[in-house]
Amino acid sequence: MTTENRLNIVRESQAYWRIIFNNPPLNCFDPWTFAELNVLIEEVEKDNTLKVIVFESADQDFFMNHHDVENRDVVPDQLGAASFFYHWPGFVTRLSQSSVLSIAKVRGRARAQGFEFALACDMRFASREHAKFALIEAGGGSVPGGGGIEWLSALAGRSRALEIVCGADDFDADIAERYGFINRALPDSELDTFVDAFARRLAGFEKHSLEAGKKIVNARAGIPSEGELWTSNHILKSVDSSPEAQEAFKKMSAAGLGKRGDFELNIGERLGDTAAD
Amino acid sequence: MTTENRLNIVRESQAYWRIIFNNPPLNCFDPWTFAELNVLIEEVEKDNTLKVIVFESADQDFFMNHHDVENRDVVPDQLGAASFFYHWPGFVTRLSQSSVLSIAKVRGRARAQGFEFALACDMRFASREHAKFALIEAGGGSVPGGGGIEWLSALAGRSRALEIVCGADDFDADIAERYGFINRALPDSELDTFVDAFARRLAGFEKHSLEAGKKIVNARAGIPSEGELWTSNHILKSVDSSPEAQEAFKKMSAAGLGKRGDFELNIGERLGDTAAD
Amino acid sequence: MTTENRLNIVRESQAYWRIIFNNPPLNCFDPWTFAELNVLIEEVEKDNTLKVIVFESADQDFFMNHHDVENRDVVPDQLGAASFFYHWPGFVTRLSQSSVLSIAKVRGRARAQGFEFALACDMRFASREHAKFALIEAGGGSVPGGGGIEWLSALAGRSRALEIVCGADDFDADIAERYGFINRALPDSELDTFVDAFARRLAGFEKHSLEAGKKIVNARAGIPSEGELWTSNHILKSVDSSPEAQEAFKKMSAAGLGKRGDFELNIGERLGDTAAD
Repeated sequence: MTTENRLNIVRESQAYWRIIFNNPPLNCFDPWTFAELNVLIEEVEKDNTLKVIVFESADQDFFMNHHDVENRDVVPDQLGAASFFYHWPGFVTRLSQSSVLSIAKVRGRARAQGFEFALACDMRFASREHAKFALIEAGGGSVPGGGGIEWLSALAGRSRALEIVCGADDFDADIAERYGFINRALPDSELDTFVDAFARRLAGFEKHSLEAGKKIVNARAGIPSEGELWTSNHILKSVDSSPEAQEAFKKMSAAGLGKRGDFELNIGERLGDTAAD
Repeated sequence: MTTENRLNIVRESQAYWRIIFNNPPLNCFDPWTFAELNVLIEEVEKDNTLKVIVFESADQDFFMNHHDVENRDVVPDQLGAASFFYHWPGFVTRLSQSSVLSIAKVRGRARAQGFEFALACDMRFASREHAKFALIEAGGGSVPGGGGIEWLSALAGRSRALEIVCGADDFDADIAERYGFINRALPDSELDTFVDAFARRLAGFEKHSLEAGKKIVNARAGIPSEGELWTSNHILKSVDSSPEAQEAFKKMSAAGLGKRGDFELNIGERLGDTAAD
Repeated sequence: MTTENRLNIVRESQAYWRIIFNNPPLNCFDPWTFAELNVLIEEVEKDNTLKVIVFESADQDFFMNHHDVENRDVVPDQLGAASFFYHWPGFVTRLSQSSVLSIAKVRGRARAQGFEFALACDMRFASREHAKFALIEAGGGSVPGGGGIEWLSALAGRSRALEIVCGADDFDADIAERYGFINRALPDSELDTFVDAFARRLAGFEKHSLEAGKKIVNARAGIPSEGELWTSNHILKSVDSSPEAQEAFKKMSAAGLGKRGDFELNIGERLGDTAAD
């Protein structure tokens, strides 16, 4: 575990940054990632010229993966570090209320906390061939905590949210688009061009127009409250401490959780196998 | 009218039951059906091992049909019997808040109260070739009461809900999926396999994960309140007592309502004919 | 600027009217249009036999265009005339709460206030080949005011509303259907027949059924409050008075705003060009 940068910021212009997430070997979300995100949001909020940020991944197979579970409770000694359970809701609230527009460009797997991070972004565009979304928690005796249920309930409606949350399976970009939890599925070969053009377009508009637009949409469409997010995070913590969840976690670890290989690549299918045992 | 079982319960395992609805000749919803549903929900709530129930039909043409109108106000002398107008809202509330997940596997027509029953289930998967959904009430001088307006407003949005409620026409599974009021349309040949695999997957997960997931989705996405459902049911009762509704009902009866034949099979089209008279 | 009729009312029957909008050269929304709409809604509310009105356009290229900006603050001396900023919210409220069902049949461009008018109708059906929807305001240093944000947040969800509002680009009917802000995209050759058949079907049903259906859907799905609409209109007014918006407006005028030609026909693309300057 090092403190090297997991977020590589590419400043395309004063108004448009790309943030490239890179955390080998599995692009897991970990406390060091969270610390860097907290530093980033601080910078974003202070910058008066920035208008749009695009989150993408250096790993073609994983946009962003689940928690690095073993280190989940670590609070490292570095700028921005904070307890995930208590402070993730605050980060989501800041990102969704920021005057800067955030876009997740999803190629590869967005799983559990990684899916929830994508949902916390203002907009999502995904590769038709290479994006996969899953809230795997229910397959491991747990329950999603980081905001997934909040955003999916609003974007996909009750019945599809139940399918995603309780089924813990993979959903590709076409279904994600039909279910309404991404803006659009795009052919992989067009994804980069499309998102880049869209970001540059936004970057060329007046910041006060973008900010007013986002504020009013937030007011009308609603965003999950910090209290709702906080509550879900604590239900996750409570469910995770159950013997059943501990047992399921052991089985998943034995099956290959946390190691680059078949289990991590095909966890949607593999959780079905485990369930049938 | 007999008290033979209309609901045939097939216990695939302790965790997964299939409930097969069979009420010849037209699979109408009637007071005997409602009584059995009330007995079923009692059983479901008491069972600590059950995780998922799938509702399906023994009649390939009708998943579940409209009320057996002539008997609608009957309260039979049997376990679970209750007045539809006063107690349907309570049943919907219990089903949607139960820790058990409910799935409607829709093949054939889901009409009026039958459509509203499907909507009261947590999730819906439907046959691309053989499912049809209609709230026929407006075509008969009436208005939907059993929860259809509540669920459709949430799942399909105001404009599409207005089209379905006021247009009283048939919608196939593809449009149902696009409008968001079913989870997914599937080729008829894959429907059984898909739903069975999904139910077995859920049945293999921890009950406390499924329950927590459903509770939080319910809290975030919302479910119609018993009061809203009760109110709509009483508006239906009031509108139904109007001379126009009585007249429309007579015309529909003369045209073939309640008899297996063209009118019942193609009621969406036929109501358009009647309207044009 | 004349006071000739911009709204041509074709009474297909006592129950079904078509309203054809015609305001050459660009089908802009102007104070004279608004005055006629106010007279129309008064008539609609008083008529006890009317059940459905269909709004369409005499101009194949423009369903309804943005404000005639230069005249936006004019209050002409004619029946129904009223200040747009103060009274548009009241019109939207009356239309959406009227017992009569309103349908926008969209062929050609629906832009800014013209898009917002279409959204204020109860239902929308659009030509797959020839409809285009855009809230162009953010591309001109402004922000949508006339209800667009309110309706889109409810129908398309937060992330897609943000894309439409902040991106200020054109969306065709297929995406409009997928995003949920029109009922359905139809081949241009079927649009007239489809909408006419649907309107005649509604016109054949009992008015009390349609009215009860609409009232309950409104209660359950919600409609934007007059206060929310009023607030958004005033944010628009405030943002429009900024130097940046004034400057953007001058650039757009120089580029061809208000004149029939490339800029008006392809404003989605052109605003991207302007932005990149």
